[in-house]
Amino acid sequence: MTSVYLGLVHYPVYNRNMEVVTSSVTNFDIHDIARTCNTYAIKNYFIIHPSTNQQEIINEILNYWNVGYGKECNPDRNQALSIVKLVNDITECVSNIQKETGQLPIIMTTDARTYSNTISYKLAREELLVQEQPILLLFGTGWGMQDSVMQAFDYILEPIYGVGEYNHLCVRSAVAIILDRLLGSPWWK
Amino acid sequence: MTSVYLGLVHYPVYNRNMEVVTSSVTNFDIHDIARTCNTYAIKNYFIIHPSTNQQEIINEILNYWNVGYGKECNPDRNQALSIVKLVNDITECVSNIQKETGQLPIIMTTDARTYSNTISYKLAREELLVQEQPILLLFGTGWGMQDSVMQAFDYILEPIYGVGEYNHLCVRSAVAIILDRLLGSPWWK
Repeated sequence: MTSVYLGLVHYPVYNRNMEVVTSSVTNFDIHDIARTCNTYAIKNYFIIHPSTNQQEIINEILNYWNVGYGKECNPDRNQALSIVKLVNDITECVSNIQKETGQLPIIMTTDARTYSNTISYKLAREELLVQEQPILLLFGTGWGMQDSVMQAFDYILEPIYGVGEYNHLCVRSAVAIILDRLLGSPWWK
Repeated sequence: MTSVYLGLVHYPVYNRNMEVVTSSVTNFDIHDIARTCNTYAIKNYFIIHPSTNQQEIINEILNYWNVGYGKECNPDRNQALSIVKLVNDITECVSNIQKETGQLPIIMTTDARTYSNTISYKLAREELLVQEQPILLLFGTGWGMQDSVMQAFDYILEPIYGVGEYNHLCVRSAVAIILDRLLGSPWWK
């Protein structure tokens, strides 16, 4: 099985008025997603944020759990957060993976719309996750990543269909569902 | 398909020292789980909390989104939170469902351990979710629900196996994965 990496993108994303913005970091995005990533053996969880002020906040949280009191009082949380890396942008994220693995990653993301390169979970699981090239799964915050950036990615995972019309999962829940579909034990067999 | 309800239990649960306590409410538990519940057409999401002080906080949050400014500024969030009900204990939760449906619900929960009444997701999906009796899915906060309470439930869903040893998903992610396994579209076919 290949190495899978995950990135959470804070720029360039849309706000509710479909303007391109930099979103603020959310503490629960750091913790919840790191715990899910550890459950599914993700190699690194990249928090992608260009703003120096926000990077300081992120580093303070990571330091508390990776070298501070948090490490001592909750080793499980320390384990979860030890795979988190902070980078400025998607390019830096990709070059980290290239340095680590010697290969450029296949980049996949998800969206509520379908595209010409939309791929099903079944196909992604059966064909992409069993080959050699590393995979980078990118998730957008806010109202999703800017269209022009999305178009440069290799695959778009199909939308998560639940029951009915409501489709406003938070990114933390979307990550959990998607990692379980791609990497979880085949419970349906 | 049957009616499915979900409850988040704050008492009686264990703390990290395996003492039985009442856990505090977490704002993200209210929002994230309500959004996931709406995605999978859960009838009601019950927040189960016995403490008057904590109930005041929960009601303040729900009112902001259900009748206050939140309703106006984010109708999707209002829709998500409109299915949330606050009850004192599991008994009150069950009697709410009985009043609504005329039947006692089948109670299922999840645990990191396996029991004599542990059921697979495949069996739960194929046999329980297609019959008439309503289903109540209960999730514990903290370090999980007290053993003696667990023993009174009809079924325990098998643990979520990811990849490797780490098994410390947050309850928000566990809810997302479990609802997708039980109620999501059959993406693996």
